Parts: sequence; structure tokens; C-alpha cells
Amino acid sequence: MVAESLVHADLRGIESHGLSRLPIYVQRIEAGLIELSLPPEPVTRQGATSLIDGKNQLGAVVGMAALEEAMELARQNGIGFVGVRHSNHFGSCSYYAEKAIAAGMILLVLSNAPSAMAPTGGIQPFFGTNPIAIGIPAGEEPAYLLDMATSVAARGKIALAAKTGTTIPQDWAIDADGLPTHDPHKALLGSLLPIGGAKGYGLSMFIDILCGLLTGAAAGASVKSLYDNWHDPQNIGHVFLCIDVQRFLPVDAFLQKMDEYIREIKKVPRAAHVAEILIPGEIEQRKMAAHKQDGIPLTQTVVEDLNKLCSGYGIDLAQAVYRV
Amino acid sequence: MVAESLVHADLRGIESHGLSRLPIYVQRIEAGLIELSLPPEPVTRQGATSLIDGKNQLGAVVGMAALEEAMELARQNGIGFVGVRHSNHFGSCSYYAEKAIAAGMILLVLSNAPSAMAPTGGIQPFFGTNPIAIGIPAGEEPAYLLDMATSVAARGKIALAAKTGTTIPQDWAIDADGLPTHDPHKALLGSLLPIGGAKGYGLSMFIDILCGLLTGAAAGASVKSLYDNWHDPQNIGHVFLCIDVQRFLPVDAFLQKMDEYIREIKKVPRAAHVAEILIPGEIEQRKMAAHKQDGIPLTQTVVEDLNKLCSGYGIDLAQAVYRV
Ligand SMILES: NC(=O)c1ccc[n+]([C@@H]2O[C@H](COP(=O)([O-])OP(=O)(O)OC[C@H]3O[C@@H](n4cnc5c(N)ncnc54)[C@H](O)[C@@H]3O)[C@@H](O)[C@H]2O)c1
Ligand SMILES: NC(=O)c1ccc[n+]([C@@H]2O[C@H](COP(=O)([O-])OP(=O)(O)OC[C@H]3O[C@@H](n4cnc5c(N)ncnc54)[C@H](O)[C@@H]3O)[C@@H](O)[C@H]2O)c1
Repeated sequence: MVAESLVHADLRGIESHGLSRLPIYVQRIEAGLIELSLPPEPVTRQGATSLIDGKNQLGAVVGMAALEEAMELARQNGIGFVGVRHSNHFGSCSYYAEKAIAAGMILLVLSNAPSAMAPTGGIQPFFGTNPIAIGIPAGEEPAYLLDMATSVAARGKIALAAKTGTTIPQDWAIDADGLPTHDPHKALLGSLLPIGGAKGYGLSMFIDILCGLLTGAAAGASVKSLYDNWHDPQNIGHVFLCIDVQRFLPVDAFLQKMDEYIREIKKVPRAAHVAEILIPGEIEQRKMAAHKQDGIPLTQTVVEDLNKLCSGYGIDLAQAVYRV
Repeated sequence: MVAESLVHADLRGIESHGLSRLPIYVQRIEAGLIELSLPPEPVTRQGATSLIDGKNQLGAVVGMAALEEAMELARQNGIGFVGVRHSNHFGSCSYYAEKAIAAGMILLVLSNAPSAMAPTGGIQPFFGTNPIAIGIPAGEEPAYLLDMATSVAARGKIALAAKTGTTIPQDWAIDADGLPTHDPHKALLGSLLPIGGAKGYGLSMFIDILCGLLTGAAAGASVKSLYDNWHDPQNIGHVFLCIDVQRFLPVDAFLQKMDEYIREIKKVPRAAHVAEILIPGEIEQRKMAAHKQDGIPLTQTVVEDLNKLCSGYGIDLAQAVYRV
């Protein structure tokens, strides 16, 4: 499941959540901070809701258990709401959304994450870049798959700018004094900015309350860092909310309505430099098609990290990679 | 219900959704475009989901019916999902969220709205400023009540700038050619911008799909304008999603966790000019406390509009207003 989730992210061109994460997952396993033997376990299941204890398993394993539970509850009740505690970084949310889409269902996935973003007016990180993903199937047109951090930009993009010596847009981050900055180095010492100012702060807080406070996972500054904390499990929380379309109208009719709707959106007059209006998820879907054809281009750093990781386990990466 | 919802908005300082909307509601009733006699009616109720036909009633009447249904479903199933079609402008979403908070429940309210925002890359309005509100109760600390349009700024703020001859920030709107503009007049001929670029476009589209396509209400450019269409009912769609906290932990324990969490947020170090970190909804809660004490300051325009409206019905507004 973890392998599939990471490759899935690389296929979609979301390098930040692809194989580049494998080394840190393995390091945390080696450090005894991730549990491999116990499976995630339901704590309660009542009506259309479930609470799952992730038992500190790998995030993708917990996420898949939660997804299946949410889909099952939705089949029975029209909607299924699954809260999850004691989980770990579960990769790109699109992994789960795509599976629900394939099953003809609507899915909303939320996760909290380690501190990176201050509340509006604050200057120290408290909230994570708490992502939200929503998958909605379509017929012949590309499915809708919104998958986004609640920050304007991912921290990884700022780290990259710092490495390459470029500046960053003023709305990405504030420095340690709370001032907007173009300097990626200062931004890394400061705090990411949420989308839409206080609106994104509010959305991120909502995700944290549902994933953290409601489920019994960590929340806010108590969510442990994937990279910097070598004492405690992350105790991340997720929420999976699944809707069974056919409670409202026949699935075929819905897919047809989605297609017509998407075509209308694509017909909206465009700005001079814009070739096409895209549906959320379409960029990644196209990258996936290209990468399935031509292979996934891994950066030199990722290849080196994977080589290092493999050699520690007596594996020859070159032998393991399938080249097109 | 409508009176309460409008006064509620004015109490919270959301003038754009207060008594200023009464005249247009009455005009649409007079034009036969809003139904007063038939109550909203459930179409289906199965498991934890319901579909309600608003029967073209006043939005607040439909909204209240949906809220009660969602809370009832949540009490039975842990979660309740209510889709609504054939509704009208239902005012400020905070009205419903506040009632759920008072009942100790978590509520998410979505609504679609007439076109005002282009998809990313587009230059003509297609999506509404489709609002989302979320209410989450707290104990002694102020409850969390996020209530927001998915556009950076409300159209009303741009109209006001045009009236008063001031400029607008560059991220509020694009002109008719799709170029960012500081000129409110050009902005009014163009399109509002969503929060976070394509992220807000995606969120707005999600709300439209759930409220419109899934329920059988209008969606996208088919949602009828409150002000400019005098032929058709608006056919607005809503979604009410309610969560019963006690399925996950005792309500008291949750409220205490919320309080501790909110206190932690308020302790985050602040930027030089910031006196206090606020919780979503706190600004409006404070305005409400002040207005309950001192009365609601109505603008001259609103008073004139109300006077005009009242005189048409032989009512003396001055006699009707309670002065503190
Ligand atoms: N597990 C975690 O803790 C965690 C935390 C944060 C982010 N993430 C993941 O990080 C990944 C990247 O997030 P991000 O916010 O940087 O994504 P992004 O900004 O690249 O994309 C956000 C969304 O906008 C859409 N989009 C972008 N441009 C568009 C356009 N022009 N037209 C239409 N749609 C457009 C994309 O398809 C996507 O759905 C996601 O997979 C997310 O799940 C995970
Ligand atoms: N019915 C409809 O069709 C429709 C459409 C759009 C908007 N609306 C309504 O319009 C109203 C206004 O929406 P808006 O987007 O202009 O609201 P807004 O931008 O004034 O506020 C958005 C949210 O951010 C919070 N907030 C603002 N500043 C903050 C700060 N410094 N710290 C913490 N929180 C802060 C507010 O409490 C609020 O919850 C809402 O009531 C909404 O429901 C209705």
C-alpha cells in the first residue's frame, strides 16, 4: 500500500509526496517510531460513523483501512464518516480520492499535519498545511479531484527556492517577525501563509479540530514532526467522508450531469494567454498518463537517497527499477 | 424565520446579509418568484441522508427545515447529510451554524449562488461566491464559527468601493479581459477572484456540484440571479452536514478540549501590531454583543429602503423600530 501510494504520487507528478518520502518512512520504522505488525483497529462503529485507531501503522495502511470503512458505511447509510487517530503521514490525499472515484463514490479526505502555519496575526507555526482532497467521478470527462494543502504554497517549494537561490512570491510566507518576505531563507524561519488569509486559517483549524480533537489524535503544535522528532509517534489524525451518489440520483445520470457541467466550464471565455480551462486534478491526470507512457523522471537526489537506502538492505536499485 | 435570520446577520455585523436584503425578498415575493404557502418537503430519507425539495420557499424557511433534518439524522446516525434543491437565497450561513452550536453539534453548511467568479484561466463569471460555514461548539471560550464566501472579497465590497471612489486590492477581481485590476468599476464588469487561486476555484466548484448537481438544483451559470432575473425562481441548492460529537467522545470532554485548544492558539506569539489572535467567528460574536447592548446601526440607505417598503404596506417604520 505504501509503495503504491508513493508511486501513485510520482505518477501524478506530486514529487513532494512520492518516492522522496520512502527514506524517512524507513528511518522512522528503524527508529521504532512506526508500528508494522498491528493492523489499524475500529474503536467504535455506530450508525454512519466509525472511529479507527491507526495503531501507529504506516499512514497509507491506516488510510486504506479508513477509506474502505467509509465506503462501506456510505453503501449502508448513504454517507460514511470515519475519524482516525494514531496514524502517520499518509502521503498524497489524491491516492484515496482516486480509489473512491473508481468506485463511483464521492470522497472527502482531511488530515492534520505538523505545525507550519501561524494563525492570522500570529508569527509562529501552529497549524499544519492540513490538506483537503475531494474526489467526484465524471463520465467521459476527467473526474474532479481537488487535492490541496490549506497553505498558499507547500513548504517544499520554499525549501527549493532557498536551494536554488530564487525569491518567492510575497503571499507565500512571513518571516519570524510576521512580515511578508520574498526571501526563502527568512520564510523558512517564519511561517507559511494560509490561502485567503483568515479564511485559510479557519479551514486549517477546522481540519485540525475534526482530525485531531474529535478523534483523539494530536492537534496543533502537538502533532509530531515527521523529520525532527525522534522520540514520539506522529499521532496524526484523518477524516474520511464518503457519499453514495445513488441515494440522490442514479449514478449514470450523475456522471452525465458532471460531463455536461465540465464541458460548460471548459467553454467559459479565457484570458489571452490561457489555452484551456482545466478541471481540478486534470493537470495531475495528464502527468499520470504521460508518466505511465514514458516512466517517472526521478531527480538525482531521490535516486541517490534510494540508492543509499537500498544498499543498506543489500538491494541493487538499478536491478529493481523497470526502465521503459 | 427570515426576520430572525436577517436581524441575526445585522447583529453579527454582516450588513450585506441583514435587513438590506428584505426589500429584494419582498420584491421577489410580489413578482410571484417565491412561494409562500407550500412548506419544504422531503423527497427521500434513507439511512443518514435526506433530500429536501425547498418548493421555492424563502431561503431561511428551507434552510431551517434542512438544519432540523440534518440534526435529527445526526442524532440517529452520528452524522446527517441533507441535500436541498429549489431553494432561494438563504442569507448568512452563520444563522444555521449558530443554531447547531447551541445544540452542541458540529455543522457544515454549503450553498451555491448566482455566477460571480470565473474558473481559473476564465474571464467570465460562472461559479457563485458559494459560501461555506462551519460551526463547532466550545465551552467557556468563543465557539468556532467560520462563515465565508469562497471569493477573496464579497462583490458588495467592490460595489461599495465603486460608490465611494476608492481602489481595491489587486487580488480581489479581474477585469473583463482577465487582467488584475485596482479599479472597482472594471472589476464589476469582470469577475471575482477565488481564494488561493485554483484552490478556491476548486472549492467553489465542489460546493456547486454537491449543492447543485447532486440535489437537482441549478448549478454554475444556471443559478438565477436574486437581482437581475425576474422570470425564474433561483433554484438554489444547499447542503447541511451535521456531526454528533458524542459518537466520538463525551460532549463535555470535547468542549474542554476545544477550550484548551483555543487558549493555545491565543498564546501563539503575535506580530508587532496585533493585539490578539482571534478565533473564526469571534469578530462577529463581539459585534453581536455590542449590538445587543447598543442596538444595530443601520445605514441611511437601508433605513430609506425599509421606509419605502413599509409605506407600500401602510406600516410606519419609526413605530416598528425598537430604540434602546
Ligand atoms: N499528508 C500530508 O500531511 C500533506 C500535507 C499537505 C499537502 N499534502 C499533499 O501535497 C500535495 C500537493 O498539495 P498542493 O496544495 O501543493 O497542490 P497544488 O497547489 O499543486 O494543487 C492543488 C489543486 O489545485 C489543482 N489545480 C492547480 N492548478 C490548477 C488550474 N490551473 N486549474 C485547475 N486546477 C488546478 C490541482 O489539480 C490540485 O487539485 C497534495 O497531494 C496533498 O495531498 C499532504
Ligand atoms: N447566501 C449566499 O449566497 C452567500 C454567498 C456568499 C457569502 N454569503 C455570506 O456572506 C457573509 C460574509 O462572507 P465573507 O467571506 O465576506 O466573510 P468575511 O471575510 O468577513 O469573514 C470570513 C470568516 O473569517 C473570519 N475572520 C475574519 N478575520 C479574522 C481574523 N483576523 N481572525 C480570525 N477569523 C477571522 C470571520 O469570523 C469569518 O468566519 C457570510 O455570512 C456568508 O455566509 C452568503
